[in-house]
Amino acid sequence: MRYAVLGTGIVGRTIAAKLVSLGHEVVIGTRDPAATLARTDPDAMGNPPFAAWHVDHSDVPLQTLDEAAAIGETVVNTTAGVATLDALTAAGGANLAGKVLIDVANPLDFSEGMPPRLDPVNTDSLGEQVQRAFPEAKVVKTLNTMSCFIMVEPGRVAGAHNVFVGGEDAGAKKQVAEMLVSFGWPESAVIDLGGIETSRGTEMLLPLWLRLMGSLGHTDFNFHIQGAR
Amino acid sequence: MRYAVLGTGIVGRTIAAKLVSLGHEVVIGTRDPAATLARTDPDAMGNPPFAAWHVDHSDVPLQTLDEAAAIGETVVNTTAGVATLDALTAAGGANLAGKVLIDVANPLDFSEGMPPRLDPVNTDSLGEQVQRAFPEAKVVKTLNTMSCFIMVEPGRVAGAHNVFVGGEDAGAKKQVAEMLVSFGWPESAVIDLGGIETSRGTEMLLPLWLRLMGSLGHTDFNFHIQGAR
Repeated sequence: MRYAVLGTGIVGRTIAAKLVSLGHEVVIGTRDPAATLARTDPDAMGNPPFAAWHVDHSDVPLQTLDEAAAIGETVVNTTAGVATLDALTAAGGANLAGKVLIDVANPLDFSEGMPPRLDPVNTDSLGEQVQRAFPEAKVVKTLNTMSCFIMVEPGRVAGAHNVFVGGEDAGAKKQVAEMLVSFGWPESAVIDLGGIETSRGTEMLLPLWLRLMGSLGHTDFNFHIQGAR
Repeated sequence: MRYAVLGTGIVGRTIAAKLVSLGHEVVIGTRDPAATLARTDPDAMGNPPFAAWHVDHSDVPLQTLDEAAAIGETVVNTTAGVATLDALTAAGGANLAGKVLIDVANPLDFSEGMPPRLDPVNTDSLGEQVQRAFPEAKVVKTLNTMSCFIMVEPGRVAGAHNVFVGGEDAGAKKQVAEMLVSFGWPESAVIDLGGIETSRGTEMLLPLWLRLMGSLGHTDFNFHIQGAR
């Protein structure tokens, strides 16, 4: 499969590297490749600049958003939630049409400091906004409820834990579930919540996730839905 | 301990019955006891009217909100979230002052149909509103992330799973954790998220809880935070 990963942050890099390791062809998209490569400072979390990562991952071409989206048979959105709609517009609706669009982003707005607020929230979600803006894409919301290191290596967390999927297209969700299984997720760990509207539920988990991070002091945790005895 | 449980719905009844079974003195509070006892219809979930439950629990006096709150050494708010501030105002700030006030409610607004929306949400929470409105009460938010049957019988759910607490007063949280342990929760299952502001996180879990209920087809589940291997 040819994947386009949109976003050059730690989430995009981690997913891109995993897909490459599984034998996929991967291109990574950014608004301005020259500017992305020119950055020399670590990000707010202390991750090295993209160029440093790219030295070890020169098999992942860096392209503009629309070039990358045109190449990808499946597109993964890992851009910051507040920038997602602009980034996907730059990627181009025609380049997304008919394709599975995996949305990993959360609409966290840090502009008023910590804790971030969600926007949209409650009666709408980023997943739904993306599906409405790109009605011909098959949007699947998934993986947005955990650290990116767990996304691609679920075995980092002890015992059983879950990953949620939501979206309107059953075939797209099936393809995404297969990708998750290839990442190491047991099939039984994938919970299909229903349509893209369920993005409200998983995006609204982020405030608790952030407080758990504060309480536990790390991000190596995930949610497990325990069932009846 | 003398507990006042405010609210005569299934959550209030379930917690009241559990506290009685543990040897506590319990009074249950409602706006209009005569009206509560006169109801003959089941609630929206099909639970029998309060009067039917009260036949088997005549050891739990039904009082007005302010009478109940005056009697209780610890107060448990199980009223509907949209009615909580009015109910606590009727209970009376003086009757809550200096007491542990356990807030189990979620601010779910069903007025525009399903799914309900949360109000407040995101930049505020019901737990914070209650603490602001009754600054002399020691508000502890807990148990609001699961079915009431699991609240008082965690063994219904297989394996390990968690209950969250949040609040400003460490002594109040300690008292609540002891109550939870008496309900059957292992001490290790109680996660202290921090201050009352963390109510945003647990209240915003409800949209996912509701969608999991839809996806799983039952309410006998709970969240478990799985840690690093």
